Amino acid sequence: MNKNRKKRVTIYDLAMELNVAPSTVSRALQDHFSIGRETRDAVKELARKRGYRTNVVAANLRMQTSNTIGVLVPWINRPFISSLISGVEEAAQEFGYNVIISQSQDCYDREVANVKTLVDSRIHALLVSLAMETTHYDHIEEIIRGGTPVVFVDRVPSSLPGHRVIIDNYQAAFEATQHLIDQGCKRIAIFSGAQHQQIYRERQLGYLAALDQNGLDIDQDLICSLDRLTLDEGYRLTEKLFLLDSRPDGIFSTNDGAAVGAIKFARQNNIPIPEELALIGFNNDPICEIVEPQLSSMTHPAAQMGRQALLQALKVATPEATTENLLVQLTTEVIIRASSRKTQATTSPE
Amino acid sequence: MNKNRKKRVTIYDLAMELNVAPSTVSRALQDHFSIGRETRDAVKELARKRGYRTNVVAANLRMQTSNTIGVLVPWINRPFISSLISGVEEAAQEFGYNVIISQSQDCYDREVANVKTLVDSRIHALLVSLAMETTHYDHIEEIIRGGTPVVFVDRVPSSLPGHRVIIDNYQAAFEATQHLIDQGCKRIAIFSGAQHQQIYRERQLGYLAALDQNGLDIDQDLICSLDRLTLDEGYRLTEKLFLLDSRPDGIFSTNDGAAVGAIKFARQNNIPIPEELALIGFNNDPICEIVEPQLSSMTHPAAQMGRQALLQALKVATPEATTENLLVQLTTEVIIRASSRKTQATTSPE
Repeated sequence: MNKNRKKRVTIYDLAMELNVAPSTVSRALQDHFSIGRETRDAVKELARKRGYRTNVVAANLRMQTSNTIGVLVPWINRPFISSLISGVEEAAQEFGYNVIISQSQDCYDREVANVKTLVDSRIHALLVSLAMETTHYDHIEEIIRGGTPVVFVDRVPSSLPGHRVIIDNYQAAFEATQHLIDQGCKRIAIFSGAQHQQIYRERQLGYLAALDQNGLDIDQDLICSLDRLTLDEGYRLTEKLFLLDSRPDGIFSTNDGAAVGAIKFARQNNIPIPEELALIGFNNDPICEIVEPQLSSMTHPAAQMGRQALLQALKVATPEATTENLLVQLTTEVIIRASSRKTQATTSPE
Repeated sequence: MNKNRKKRVTIYDLAMELNVAPSTVSRALQDHFSIGRETRDAVKELARKRGYRTNVVAANLRMQTSNTIGVLVPWINRPFISSLISGVEEAAQEFGYNVIISQSQDCYDREVANVKTLVDSRIHALLVSLAMETTHYDHIEEIIRGGTPVVFVDRVPSSLPGHRVIIDNYQAAFEATQHLIDQGCKRIAIFSGAQHQQIYRERQLGYLAALDQNGLDIDQDLICSLDRLTLDEGYRLTEKLFLLDSRPDGIFSTNDGAAVGAIKFARQNNIPIPEELALIGFNNDPICEIVEPQLSSMTHPAAQMGRQALLQALKVATPEATTENLLVQLTTEVIIRASSRKTQATTSPE
């Protein structure tokens, strides 16, 4: 793709010089109705002066691609992922792109088929969050070699280099675990995902580090790897944990769905929350405020992440893009609710 | 598209003659590994004998389309819609197709842009569930005229003819309302959607008919039309209803999300459910079993609907398809839970 490595004038340059948003420049060049005639004229004149070559639409036509961004995710119905997609869509609309979506249902085979389908749809760029099953990346390497710009988001490959938009999973997990420790928990279980997935491995490392730094024992019986992190799996695993001689007094679940399963088990078996079992989830899904007791969680800037992924994709898809791999890392915070609030000392950030 | 009106041999004919599933024939012709050599040979021989012309893949290449099915929905994150999409995907996989998805977020403008994007992706057929805002259908008529097979599913147009897969919305709403009446409710409110949308109009008509047949008054104050049927809207509308001189004693909500909003308001204001306010939703989303009290609802055969829509789409996309409009109508049933169970006499079908 990027044969022309000479520094060319971009809409970002024009935007900076005119002190307007890049989206204004982009729209002005496309004669978008929302931009006043004066601005449109000013943008076009500067574009001519600076030798700005063409707009994205024409460029895409020349490159035989479209104004379509492909998004490949594990599940479309997880709240965090649909927020991420909304973030992509909003930014895409701003820059004159449309979005098509495809879900792998966490299956490697479907992911391979979906990548092919999306690329056959002549997409301009692809945003990918990997399926839980995926352990090697030939299907994605192939399309990158073929010239389709790819940005990985959230569930990124552990070994393949590439552009990434992620959260600081290690830090987030450390803070979630530290919060349970601050509430007096001594035996904290983790519900994690497949360890070949970087996000789950990082979260598990953060959990282990928090135990270690607080002088707590690490018990392999309390480290649970889930296949799909569903409510049912969370329920069944909690049942198992409560058959141990030494039960857990806290659970850090790396998503909210599995934590809700744990709450369901605890309530059905009259285990007081948070007194005998304190819980914190991850993602801060709407369910956190619907379940009883309400579930503590880690925020996940999913919409912002989607927006960033789209912006990175547009950036790397321009002819003047460098070959360097971009990394955007976003931060999260603890949201404390009734499922883990044991002490008066803790104040909620809500 | 369908210039060749002569009756041609289809995989359905071959399947019937060999007494195997059409998917077996389709896979055998494509040398799919899951079909034994003997069956593959038998299918291919019969295909030759009967003059079966080609497989879908080759036909699609000839017709300049792909093996991709486009699905356009209002929201990907509503449980009913993600089930519908799963139903489409499973059937698609069976027949060797892939699925790309696009959401309108209930906006007409996005729907128009998405239709264009999907058609530009050279889809084989398009399944459409309309945006709440959509009142006219030029954007879809245009692509039908252009030769893309379209099947409407669930939210179908009120005036444009076309292939449809729907539930019996009138009957479902009648039964939901009748259930509340059977529980002793006299002042039943409805949370409905935009009345230009056939599904919400039918549901409202079913509600009105149930009141009428039971000799109950119809009160315009109790008929609420919601913009998006969200939890927040449901909450605010319930708040309004409880400011009326004569409060409702039951709510039939045409989705579950808005009903959960009503439950939230009732609980915060110490209104006993179901004694002073009985509730039933629609779709039987997972939230029905998570919210407290658990929410009664109408089942929605969403996955089956998705599957049917895909099958109809493949049928109408074959060269031998007739121009007649297909209609598939599925039935629903009442699921009674704590939010509306007032009398001992009622037994739950669960």
